[in-house]
Amino acid sequence: MKNFEKYRPGYYMPPEPCMDWVKKDRLTEAPAWCSVDLRDGNQALITPMNLEEKLAFYRFLLDVGFKEIEVGFPAASETEYEFLRTIIEDHLIPDDVYIQVLTQSRPHIIQKTFEAIKGAKNVVVHLYNSTSFAQRQQVFRMAEDEIVDIAVSGAKLFNEYADKMPETNFRFEYSPESFTGTEVEFALRICNAVIDVWQPRPERKVIINLPSTVEMSMPHVYAQQIEYMSKHLHSRENVIVSIHPHNDRGTAVAAGELALLAGGQRIEGTLFGNGERTGNVDIVTMAMNLFTHGVDPKLDFSDMPKTVKFYEELTGMSVGYRQPYSGHLVFAAFSGSHQDAISKGMKFRQERQEPFWTVPYLPLDPHDVNREYETDVIRINSQSGKGGISYILEHNFGYDLPKEMAAEVGYFIKGISDHAHKELTPHEILVAFQHEYQNKDVPIALQDISWIREKGSTVADATLAIHNELYYLSARGNGPLDAVSNVLKIANPNIQYQFVDYEEHALETDSDSLASAYVVIADEEGNHYWGVGVDSDITMASVYALITAVNRENKVKQFIPTHETD
Amino acid sequence: MKNFEKYRPGYYMPPEPCMDWVKKDRLTEAPAWCSVDLRDGNQALITPMNLEEKLAFYRFLLDVGFKEIEVGFPAASETEYEFLRTIIEDHLIPDDVYIQVLTQSRPHIIQKTFEAIKGAKNVVVHLYNSTSFAQRQQVFRMAEDEIVDIAVSGAKLFNEYADKMPETNFRFEYSPESFTGTEVEFALRICNAVIDVWQPRPERKVIINLPSTVEMSMPHVYAQQIEYMSKHLHSRENVIVSIHPHNDRGTAVAAGELALLAGGQRIEGTLFGNGERTGNVDIVTMAMNLFTHGVDPKLDFSDMPKTVKFYEELTGMSVGYRQPYSGHLVFAAFSGSHQDAISKGMKFRQERQEPFWTVPYLPLDPHDVNREYETDVIRINSQSGKGGISYILEHNFGYDLPKEMAAEVGYFIKGISDHAHKELTPHEILVAFQHEYQNKDVPIALQDISWIREKGSTVADATLAIHNELYYLSARGNGPLDAVSNVLKIANPNIQYQFVDYEEHALETDSDSLASAYVVIADEEGNHYWGVGVDSDITMASVYALITAVNRENKVKQFIPTHETD
Repeated sequence: MKNFEKYRPGYYMPPEPCMDWVKKDRLTEAPAWCSVDLRDGNQALITPMNLEEKLAFYRFLLDVGFKEIEVGFPAASETEYEFLRTIIEDHLIPDDVYIQVLTQSRPHIIQKTFEAIKGAKNVVVHLYNSTSFAQRQQVFRMAEDEIVDIAVSGAKLFNEYADKMPETNFRFEYSPESFTGTEVEFALRICNAVIDVWQPRPERKVIINLPSTVEMSMPHVYAQQIEYMSKHLHSRENVIVSIHPHNDRGTAVAAGELALLAGGQRIEGTLFGNGERTGNVDIVTMAMNLFTHGVDPKLDFSDMPKTVKFYEELTGMSVGYRQPYSGHLVFAAFSGSHQDAISKGMKFRQERQEPFWTVPYLPLDPHDVNREYETDVIRINSQSGKGGISYILEHNFGYDLPKEMAAEVGYFIKGISDHAHKELTPHEILVAFQHEYQNKDVPIALQDISWIREKGSTVADATLAIHNELYYLSARGNGPLDAVSNVLKIANPNIQYQFVDYEEHALETDSDSLASAYVVIADEEGNHYWGVGVDSDITMASVYALITAVNRENKVKQFIPTHETD
Repeated sequence: MKNFEKYRPGYYMPPEPCMDWVKKDRLTEAPAWCSVDLRDGNQALITPMNLEEKLAFYRFLLDVGFKEIEVGFPAASETEYEFLRTIIEDHLIPDDVYIQVLTQSRPHIIQKTFEAIKGAKNVVVHLYNSTSFAQRQQVFRMAEDEIVDIAVSGAKLFNEYADKMPETNFRFEYSPESFTGTEVEFALRICNAVIDVWQPRPERKVIINLPSTVEMSMPHVYAQQIEYMSKHLHSRENVIVSIHPHNDRGTAVAAGELALLAGGQRIEGTLFGNGERTGNVDIVTMAMNLFTHGVDPKLDFSDMPKTVKFYEELTGMSVGYRQPYSGHLVFAAFSGSHQDAISKGMKFRQERQEPFWTVPYLPLDPHDVNREYETDVIRINSQSGKGGISYILEHNFGYDLPKEMAAEVGYFIKGISDHAHKELTPHEILVAFQHEYQNKDVPIALQDISWIREKGSTVADATLAIHNELYYLSARGNGPLDAVSNVLKIANPNIQYQFVDYEEHALETDSDSLASAYVVIADEEGNHYWGVGVDSDITMASVYALITAVNRENKVKQFIPTHETD
C-alpha cells in the first residue's frame, strides 16, 4: 500500500517512564461518568437534534443515571442556549446533577456563558484551548507562551464571574484540547498554570480533562501520558483527572480503561460511541465491561433493546450488529461447538446452582440486559450443530430429545437451513420438527382406543382410519403400548419392525400440562424411525409416538391394509 | 444496575510479572496476517456464504495481499470440503500462499483433514482443543491430564500423516482454544507438550496460536499472558506466536496490538471484525493503524470504498458509519472549529510542501484510501461554521471569498441547513450560494455594454433591462467599473451606495477559464451588500459583481427607474 512513508506518529511520550498502572489488572470501581452526547455526539450527526429531541435525549440520560451532562456551547449556538435555558427554567435539572457548558477562552464568550447558566444549581464550566504542536503551528501560529496566556486569562475570568454568582455550585474544568498531539510537558505546564489560577480546594475541586481529541497512539501510551500528568499536576488531591478518548484507531475503550488505571477518575464519552469521525469512547461498553467484572457500573443498561431503540430513533445512527453488549448478534452462537458448550454450560449452571455466571461463549447473561435466550443466543443456520437445535427444542419448547434422535433431528433441520440458504427461527424449527416427527396420522390415524387390563396383560380395542377407511381392531400385549403395537401388526402384516427404545417426560409449557414420548423402531435392515407423541395423557403420548414412528417408516414403503374387522 | 455481583473476572494472570512489552510505544513492522474470514467470519453470518460467494471472497483476500488464509473445517463441513477441493484442483492457490485448515483433535477427523488437502503445496494444519477451566469443568468434565492427552495424541497423528505427504510444505498450528479462560501455566504446559511432539526446526516452524476466544480481560492483561507464553515456550526460536483476539469487551484491536508488542508475531482476524458475537479483531483497523504510524502494513486497502462494498455484498453485514478508516463518516468534520483547523492545515500543507501528513482532525489523508476531500471531509449542517463553508466553496468550486463575505455566507448557509433540518451537500451549497450571490439580474439585467477609453477616463454605453423594459444609458468613470456604477446611479438616483471593496481571482475549474469578482457596497446606514460576478472576461466579472450587489441591496427596497432614454 502506497504512501505509508508520508506518516509518522504525532504523539509525545512523557519525559519519564510511567508504568505503575500496568501493575493493576482491572478496574474495581466505576469512574465519574460525564455524557457528552448532547455536544460531541450531537454535533457529529448528519442531522443534529432539535430542541424537542434534545430534551428527550437529556431525560433519557438522566434515566440511565448520568450525574454530569454536557449540554453544549450556550454562547456559540442558539439552539444550545435555548436548550440550556429550557432545562434551567423548567426545573429539569435534578439537585444531584451537574450540567456542563463549554466555552472557548475568549472574554465575550466566557461572559455570555456565565450569563447563560444563571439559575442553575450545579454547573461544570469547561474552558478549553488548543495546545497541540500542529494547531499552534498551523492554525494559531502562536508560541507556547501565547497559548498559555490564552488559557490563563480565560481562567482568571472564570474566577471573576463565579465570584459574582455565589448561589451556584461551580466546578471548573480545563482541557488542553488536542492533548494527544501536545508535548506532555507543555500540557502539564498549561494545566498547572490554570490550576494555579483556580486554586482548587476540597470543596471546590477542579477538573483537568485530557482529551485524545484525535486518537494518535496505542492505548498504553495514552495511559502513560495520563499517569505522568496525574503524578505532576499541582494540588493533585483537589484535582479530578478526567479523560475524553476518541476512537480513530479503534482503541478508545482500551485507552479509556487503561487511562483510568493510570490516574483518571472521570470519563467523558457517549452512548454507543457517537461523536465526530470515529466517535467518542462508548460509555455503554465501558460500563458493561465493569459489570461483567463484578463491579457496579453506576449506570443502568438493564433494558438494552430499549436503550438501543431510543438512541437510534433520536440520533438517526444505528447500533451495529456486533457492537459489544448491545448489537443484534452479540449473544448469537451459530456454530455447533459453541452451541453445544453453551447448552452444556446452561445445564451445568442449573444442576450446580452456580452463584457466578461462567457459561462458555456467553460473557454476559442475556437476561441481565433484557435479551432473550430463546431468540438471541442459539441461532440455527447451516453452520449449526445438533447441540444447538436440541437446545432450541428443549429450551424454547420443552422437548428433551433422546441423544440419538437429537443427532438425526440436527441433520434434518440443518439440511432445511442449508437448502433454503437462510437462518431458521425457533418457530420455524418447531414447525419443521413437529411436521416431520410428531403425532403423524398418515397413513394410519388413531380414531379411538380403549383398553382393559386383565389376566396380567392388556387388551386394546382400536379404531383406525387408514386412507379414509375405518378399521376396528383388537389385540393383546404386555401393556397398552405393546397391545397397540400388536393392533398395528394385525392391521398390516407387512409392517415389519422391532421396538428399539422408548423415553418420555412431562413437556413443560406454560399453559398446558402435556407429556412427550419418544419411540424408536427398527425395520428389517436395521434402519431406525423415530416418532414423537404429545398428549395430556402420558400413555396416549406413547401410543401416538409409536403410530408416528410406524407412519414414518411406512412413508417410504407401500402401505396396504390387509385385515379389516367390522 | 442489578446482578453485577453475579460476575467475576474469568481470566488468569501469569505467575510472574510480564511487562517488558510496555516499554515499547509502538509497532515498527507488520505481523504475519492470517485471514479467518472464511471460517470465523463466515460461520457467524446469518446466511453463510455459498461456494460461489466463498470463491469470490477468497480471490478478494488474495487481492488484499493475505499470504495465509484459513478455509475452514474440510472434515466437518461439506461446503468447506468442496470449497477446499475446488481451490486445489482449479489451481487457485498462488505459490506463496498457505491455506489453513482446522481440525478437532479426533483421529478420524484428523485423517479426513489430511486427505482433504492432498495436492495443495503449502498448508497450515491447525489443531485445537478447548483448555479453559469452564470448558473442562462444564463441557468435557475432564481433568488436566486428559485434556493434555487429547492435544498430544492429535499432534502425534499430525506427524504420521505429514510424513506420508512429502510433496506438501506443512506448517503445524496448535491452539489451546479458550486460552483466555485457561490458567496460563496450564496453557503453557499443553502448548509445550504439543511442541515437544512436533519438534519444530528452522525449516518447519510451528505456530502456537493463543486465542482470546472470549475476550475476558483488559487488553494489557492479554499482553502479559502472551509475554509469559512467549518467554517460556519450548524451542521458542522455531515457534511463531500467533494471536487471535475477539472483541467481547470492545478492545480486540488494542489486545491484538499490545499482544504483538508482547511477543506475538502473527495475527488471525477478519476484515471489519466480522466473526462470532462481537466479532474477531478487525484486520483493516490494525493494518491502517500501522499505516498511519508510517509502517508498511503489507496489505492493500488503498481503495477502501471498494473493499467495503465488496465485503457488504458478500457477507450481508454492514460497515458502520464510524468504523475506523472505513466508515462513511470517519473523515467528516461538521463542527465549525474542526473545519476551520482542517482548512488552515490543508493550506499550511500546500504552502510549506510538508513531507509528513499533519493536518489537524484528519489522522489519515482521505486520498490514501480513495476517499474524497470534496464529499467526505468538510460537511455542512447547522453545527458548521464559516470556515467549513468557505472551504467547500474554495476547495470544491474554486471560490476564494473575501474574509468578511465568508462570514456572511457562512451564516446564510448554516441558516438554510438549520431551517431545512438537514445536511447540505456541496452541490446544494453551491446552488444556494450562486442563487443568492452570483450574477443576479433582477431587477437590473445588463443586456449589452461597450466602453471607450478616452481622455483618461472610460465611457460606458449600457443596455439595461429593468422589469422587462429596456433602458439605454451612458456614463463616464475612472474605469469600466466606475462607469457602470455611474450608469446605475443614472438609472435610479434612489440607488444610494458607496463602493467599499473589490477582489477578483481566476476561478479554477477544469473545463473553463473563468474569473470571479467580489464587490461589496454599503447603503446609507452602512449595511454591506456583497455581489459575485463570474465571467470569462475579468472586467465583465466585476461588472456583474457590482450589478449583483446593487440588485441585492435593492431586493429589500422599492426599485423605481426614474430615467429613461430613447
